[in-house]
Amino acid sequence: MTAEIIAVGSEMLTPQKTDTNSLWLTDQLNLLGVDVTQKSVIGDDQNRLAAAIAAALDRTPLILLTGGLGPTEDDLTREATAQALNRALIHDPAILHAIEQRFASFGRKMAPINKRQAFLVDGAEKLDNPNGTAPGQWLDFDGRMLALLPGPPGEMKPLFLSQVLPRLQAVLPPRVLRTRFFRVAGMGESDVDQLIAPAYKPYENPVTTILAAAGDIQIHLRSFSATEAEAEARVAELGAKIEALLGNRIYSRNGDPLETALGVLLRERKATLAVAESCTGGLLGGRITEAPGSSEWFLGGFQVYGRAMKTRLLGLDEKLVEKEGVVSEAVAIAMAESARDRTGATYALSVTGEAGPDSATPGIEPGTVWIGIATPDGVEAKLHRFPGNRARVRAFAVQSALNLLRLRL
Amino acid sequence: MTAEIIAVGSEMLTPQKTDTNSLWLTDQLNLLGVDVTQKSVIGDDQNRLAAAIAAALDRTPLILLTGGLGPTEDDLTREATAQALNRALIHDPAILHAIEQRFASFGRKMAPINKRQAFLVDGAEKLDNPNGTAPGQWLDFDGRMLALLPGPPGEMKPLFLSQVLPRLQAVLPPRVLRTRFFRVAGMGESDVDQLIAPAYKPYENPVTTILAAAGDIQIHLRSFSATEAEAEARVAELGAKIEALLGNRIYSRNGDPLETALGVLLRERKATLAVAESCTGGLLGGRITEAPGSSEWFLGGFQVYGRAMKTRLLGLDEKLVEKEGVVSEAVAIAMAESARDRTGATYALSVTGEAGPDSATPGIEPGTVWIGIATPDGVEAKLHRFPGNRARVRAFAVQSALNLLRLRL
Repeated sequence: MTAEIIAVGSEMLTPQKTDTNSLWLTDQLNLLGVDVTQKSVIGDDQNRLAAAIAAALDRTPLILLTGGLGPTEDDLTREATAQALNRALIHDPAILHAIEQRFASFGRKMAPINKRQAFLVDGAEKLDNPNGTAPGQWLDFDGRMLALLPGPPGEMKPLFLSQVLPRLQAVLPPRVLRTRFFRVAGMGESDVDQLIAPAYKPYENPVTTILAAAGDIQIHLRSFSATEAEAEARVAELGAKIEALLGNRIYSRNGDPLETALGVLLRERKATLAVAESCTGGLLGGRITEAPGSSEWFLGGFQVYGRAMKTRLLGLDEKLVEKEGVVSEAVAIAMAESARDRTGATYALSVTGEAGPDSATPGIEPGTVWIGIATPDGVEAKLHRFPGNRARVRAFAVQSALNLLRLRL
Repeated sequence: MTAEIIAVGSEMLTPQKTDTNSLWLTDQLNLLGVDVTQKSVIGDDQNRLAAAIAAALDRTPLILLTGGLGPTEDDLTREATAQALNRALIHDPAILHAIEQRFASFGRKMAPINKRQAFLVDGAEKLDNPNGTAPGQWLDFDGRMLALLPGPPGEMKPLFLSQVLPRLQAVLPPRVLRTRFFRVAGMGESDVDQLIAPAYKPYENPVTTILAAAGDIQIHLRSFSATEAEAEARVAELGAKIEALLGNRIYSRNGDPLETALGVLLRERKATLAVAESCTGGLLGGRITEAPGSSEWFLGGFQVYGRAMKTRLLGLDEKLVEKEGVVSEAVAIAMAESARDRTGATYALSVTGEAGPDSATPGIEPGTVWIGIATPDGVEAKLHRFPGNRARVRAFAVQSALNLLRLRL
């Protein structure tokens, strides 16, 4: 089956806002085996919307509309649907009563304008909306299905899951989904793709999706079948091939971000971590502490952004800094060593580099970053050259520091 | 005039990707006084795309298409446009030569597949694309204008600005834009709106847009007129009213973020800043050092995330921490004081709080944050209760700390 999604509302035709409901709906539909063939955004214009609905019904069996069910005069989805189908709008006293009750439960009186929400397109089933005043509507006729859904995601999503999804499942062939989810650090997107494409390209099912952020690659496998066993077998087969190719570059199989995966490893070892940050200014610690419960294994550290702080807070030898330069292997090593000593942590990570846009350090190209690691067994530092602007270089540096420690554990 | 935007490409009908080119294009069109009345996303399907183009031309004078101009068989915008207009595709040897030259300049040989990009819809003008192989195309007939633009933003935007914009300006009435841009800290979005709505509501021109992030509100005013003097007078009138209402809650009039505005104030005073961070783990320093050149005024600081670090790195009295609790006025004050002393900075900010999701500190609600400030004149701390999840509480804490120092300066 194929579907179209129509998002209704003039605010989505401004430079600031776009339709994002359709991404979530597309995901839901794809899981059912339904492909989305067209998406549209239409403003609050009854004739234009009616024409779009009529045209969509001519070419596509399933149409989902989001938005335009509110109480104001700008909310025209009910009227436009009635116009497109050449049907009347019928007042439903039960809906009106439910809206009045909803207002009463908040200790408020319903405004007269809300009466507009108590009309159904002739022949439509009401879709109860426990999270808002506007009910959805469902029409099923001549092999066509049309759902009118509220625009706010907090209303639309539960309504879709509780009332539209069962109606679609009833008419679609049964379909079981099994997934694999790998997160990979230490490789670029194109390198990952080049490595695993020969494995996944031959498969149409599972579907493979690769998403990339700075130094962080997500690989999603989704397999569909009529039976659970077959779906699992399909995804297990391709999953094993990809795992064999990527090996320990995979840091998570359950969606956890790198800092959480690292926390699991440190907790297992009853180990603790400290940091010393120059060019990242605190971002590494900020990222680590995104993980709730990180206080069990993250102690803290030093933001030695200004040159003098490297001596003053970490006790680095000023002559060493002078001779080797702030962005150097020797300084990265001394920072990691001192952070470990001064906090008493099991491990310490250090970052010193030039994030750009201009180089503050003569002879050092923006993107040059030294990452140091101090462990009970010794200390060392690795040189990186990251592409991109200041924000990207700093994000890469944080990710690479976390990954360096992960590989060491 | 009104316009429609059609984005072409099956990847934009997946759950992962959406059309974002249309936001930028809408902004450009709005600046010219052109309203966007409909947006569509169509997959790589020639018949469906041709039908969509024909329908759009029937109702709207200006159509912008993005994407589908690449060299592969999936790239069907040329063919679909020709089909919709019932015109032929004409081979253009000059385009082919330019594509071959482009490949040669990279030391590569053009693949035969790229020949597809050397065809123009009969009657179309070529729009040179210095950033890619696919030229754009421009059609102007029977009061209709149709632009075929490449999909990659890095190709589409310069091509639009250099070749589509002048063509539109030539047929549209002259229009001058004047803007004001205020950034506000220390107030919520609804409080800002309630305060300034009586000022801006009476004006249709300037257009007022309010955007909000955690603790950071942006107010954009845009005024249009046939003359510069009139556009400036309009925006100055409303701008003055809004400035009078918001006073020193406005921290920037040029778009600079809070850390940059703060840097200007510190540089003027030849002053420096240090931090001591508990629940933010480094985010405050990370945010401060987003500003290039912040090393002139930001020294660094201490990530005292673990309880013991407050004593070990900052020298806080363990009895004080025990008695008052980690999240307390006394600890925030002691942290700021010690960070200032140990770094030698003019000012120091401290953050200690409970970011959630669960409270690690008995009796302290998630969202409770003390922010301390140490200055040459003394030290104090302020209590905040921030709404939202862990990430939001931490973002609010960072913004509030920066704003506390700004107001002190």
